Amino acid sequence: MIPVIDMEEKIGNIEKTWSPVDIAYINDQVIRAAIFHGEYHWHKHDDEDELFLVHRGAISIQVKGQETIELAQGQLCVIPKGVEHKPRAAEPSVVLLFEPSKLKSTGD
Amino acid sequence: MIPVIDMEEKIGNIEKTWSPVDIAYINDQVIRAAIFHGEYHWHKHDDEDELFLVHRGAISIQVKGQETIELAQGQLCVIPKGVEHKPRAAEPSVVLLFEPSKLKSTGD
Repeated sequence: MIPVIDMEEKIGNIEKTWSPVDIAYINDQVIRAAIFHGEYHWHKHDDEDELFLVHRGAISIQVKGQETIELAQGQLCVIPKGVEHKPRAAEPSVVLLFEPSKLKSTGD
Repeated sequence: MIPVIDMEEKIGNIEKTWSPVDIAYINDQVIRAAIFHGEYHWHKHDDEDELFLVHRGAISIQVKGQETIELAQGQLCVIPKGVEHKPRAAEPSVVLLFEPSKLKSTGD
């Protein structure tokens, strides 16, 4: 039987900031949900693009050599592989992440 | 410069039902948005899983040999490759689709 997955139920399982929970796997990719609050560290993924979609709240992503990206609720961006970035959120914000399932959930 | 993509703006570009618009590409996958209304035809994708996430409204997906899947707003499911399915929606509903970018947007 194909299971029905409830986004809010999965989000309710998040225990701490910057620690994504898996929502669904598809074609070797994974959709995760995380709560961002405060600042994450600078990092990059050498072989994978990473998509950030703001489900609730607002985040910004500093990007090496570019202007900081500001994402409001309902907005998204794709950080291409190899690009150094540093997410942050002034208030607790729920972010959906799309990335290859082989990627470690906590980055490099 | 990495572009900011606005989900509602993309959804506003949808011109007719069952005709997805592309939202973002990532790692050879694509996120699309479509308006479902009425019944689609039975089809399957031989090599790709397909994820359906209800952004607004409600849909059901008939699945060969299984109970019909009912998805409310905020709910999702993954139809595995090779599984015949037939989506429908009683009212116009906005659905996000995640699938390999090589997949034709209108299915088989």
